[in-house]
Amino acid sequence: MATLGFLEYADAPPEVKAVYDDIMTTRQTDYINNFWKALAHDPATLRRTWESIKQVMAPGVLDPLTKEMIYLAVSTTNGCSYCVASHTVAARKAGMSDVQFAELMAVVGMANESNRLATGYQVEIDERFRT
Amino acid sequence: MATLGFLEYADAPPEVKAVYDDIMTTRQTDYINNFWKALAHDPATLRRTWESIKQVMAPGVLDPLTKEMIYLAVSTTNGCSYCVASHTVAARKAGMSDVQFAELMAVVGMANESNRLATGYQVEIDERFRT
Amino acid sequence: MATLGFLEYADAPPEVKAVYDDIMTTRQTDYINNFWKALAHDPATLRRTWESIKQVMAPGVLDPLTKEMIYLAVSTTNGCSYCVASHTVAARKAGMSDVQFAELMAVVGMANESNRLATGYQVEIDERFRT
Amino acid sequence: MATLGFLEYADAPPEVKAVYDDIMTTRQTDYINNFWKALAHDPATLRRTWESIKQVMAPGVLDPLTKEMIYLAVSTTNGCSYCVASHTVAARKAGMSDVQFAELMAVVGMANESNRLATGYQVEIDERFRT
Amino acid sequence: MATLGFLEYADAPPEVKAVYDDIMTTRQTDYINNFWKALAHDPATLRRTWESIKQVMAPGVLDPLTKEMIYLAVSTTNGCSYCVASHTVAARKAGMSDVQFAELMAVVGMANESNRLATGYQVEIDERFRT
Amino acid sequence: MATLGFLEYADAPPEVKAVYDDIMTTRQTDYINNFWKALAHDPATLRRTWESIKQVMAPGVLDPLTKEMIYLAVSTTNGCSYCVASHTVAARKAGMSDVQFAELMAVVGMANESNRLATGYQVEIDERFRT
Repeated sequence: MATLGFLEYADAPPEVKAVYDDIMTTRQTDYINNFWKALAHDPATLRRTWESIKQVMAPGVLDPLTKEMIYLAVSTTNGCSYCVASHTVAARKAGMSDVQFAELMAVVGMANESNRLATGYQVEIDERFRT
Repeated sequence: MATLGFLEYADAPPEVKAVYDDIMTTRQTDYINNFWKALAHDPATLRRTWESIKQVMAPGVLDPLTKEMIYLAVSTTNGCSYCVASHTVAARKAGMSDVQFAELMAVVGMANESNRLATGYQVEIDERFRT
Repeated sequence: MATLGFLEYADAPPEVKAVYDDIMTTRQTDYINNFWKALAHDPATLRRTWESIKQVMAPGVLDPLTKEMIYLAVSTTNGCSYCVASHTVAARKAGMSDVQFAELMAVVGMANESNRLATGYQVEIDERFRT
Repeated sequence: MATLGFLEYADAPPEVKAVYDDIMTTRQTDYINNFWKALAHDPATLRRTWESIKQVMAPGVLDPLTKEMIYLAVSTTNGCSYCVASHTVAARKAGMSDVQFAELMAVVGMANESNRLATGYQVEIDERFRT
Repeated sequence: MATLGFLEYADAPPEVKAVYDDIMTTRQTDYINNFWKALAHDPATLRRTWESIKQVMAPGVLDPLTKEMIYLAVSTTNGCSYCVASHTVAARKAGMSDVQFAELMAVVGMANESNRLATGYQVEIDERFRT
Repeated sequence: MATLGFLEYADAPPEVKAVYDDIMTTRQTDYINNFWKALAHDPATLRRTWESIKQVMAPGVLDPLTKEMIYLAVSTTNGCSYCVASHTVAARKAGMSDVQFAELMAVVGMANESNRLATGYQVEIDERFRT
């Protein structure tokens, strides 16, 4: 299941329940992902991580779908199977179509390829690209 | 500079010049990045890589700016300094503002953090997230 | 199971049995992890890897628990599920409490986040931090 | 320098100055790392990242030196040169000796090696290590 | 199974069948890997990826076995379990013996270890190794 | 230079000199790479790492050139610039031509791309590829 197990709503102390409630309200769902139930044994990390993700994933100059696709691009590159599974669902909920998913993966694939070519060929940064 | 050096336009054989010309036409520029000049000693890889990137980065259901930001998200996660430098410039050319860049980085950062938490806590994939 | 299968004690040649015996004696256990049984088809790598780990993980100026937590931090960052599972158990055997585990993960998560922010923002190394 | 440049104290808006002040007070220094000055163009991310790191790196059941060494282990595994440079200095400030550094690196190296062996040999997780 | 499911030969449109046919002819098999059936929902990416891999993995100055072992070295380092499983089989089909596999893994392991030591010790590149 | 500085031959204690001598004899050179001079402050790690690399990189069923190319494939994938620089030189010394280098990089690039596609599409391992 998870290293410290899952902390279910019914068994959670008030400070965990408060985070669970905020997750369900913010995301308009009655489901708490395993990720949160696994973190909940450490209420401080649960709260900090949730507050950070809530802030970062809120609509800004980037829309929620774009943000979810970036999340999925990173999770894919890191090879995190849990994160790929959960953020694929989240991106779809934010509106990602099959065609958008396929284009996203095509970009992720090419970026990973060209990253290694640049590294392996020891390409010096162009003068005009330096900060 | 680069493992095999840079192949300048003037010194390039016709099949390399043809790729350079297509890059400059497609991107509406007269500048060839070091990346391409480093790859050009292997004309087959130069052509294949360019054709693939041209296809993948062309406008589709995802717009060019979104694609460049995904490229930058992957390059950042892989720690490829050449790619971060060149795709930061490319994303800006595609319209990325400073605020969009900052939001992109905030998402990339959080995704990297939560990827490790999911892995380290050995969180089992939720039944409903399975394919 | 494993690419080359597991080599059980009863079926092992003398040079493998000798390593298995040393593992069991050093770790005061009668259990050989799948990792070692998978490597054992290559007795030279089995011996070299075991001797290296035995030397590196022995008490030094860092205590065994600290070393196991560092091992777990690396395994988490690399996304190695086998290693996370086995070193979580090893760290607990060395005394890691649930609260220590949670603090460890919090640090691992933040380090992964800030690593990417530093890379993505192309932060130049401070003069005073250079070697 | 950095993608968005460095924001110096004198040029910073009040909400950034407040974070800079808290960094200097908490760390008992009059120096602000380039990392923070690069992030400061996005005051929300600056504040969130600083508050998170302050919380995570504060003394807990793990002491500050152990936390800094874990940070360095992760940064090394991710290949983040900025982070390796800055956290090597931070770990030393927290008391890391040359011998402790060398033991840390030895563990990081072996963990990276054995992570890949476990993955490459496709070692199944031992029944007793499953959560 | 896979995010977009598997597209079986009988259900595939002509442009996908054409790629499947070329895969089976080139590899002299009547089996299509799950990888291709998962990609097939995006025929352009299916074709581009297959054409690229066919070109890259064809005999050149490096023989097919060497190329498959390099593929396996990369897949192991990236922690891609699907790729490790499929390319272990592909390398064996290309002639990889158990002893060659074991030597390959030993090199992959040591490279991962020494990569981190070089990074963690912040070793400056030797003047004579610079391009 | 390096975190603990470089330990030059003339300043080295006997146990370090012995390793340096063995490196120079084995590799038929009078040059000690910065990597070894950086590690030398920890003579135990210096010796263990050198003995391991000497054993792993010695001719076996895989020839030295193949081993060096695998090393370079891993170093490229990990983004270790020191290791890419030093092992490019080592591979060339072992006989790698420019064309072999280019083919190596093409394989490394494609492997990195397809690794991410397999992960991102959540491709289930084919029954016949399971160990």
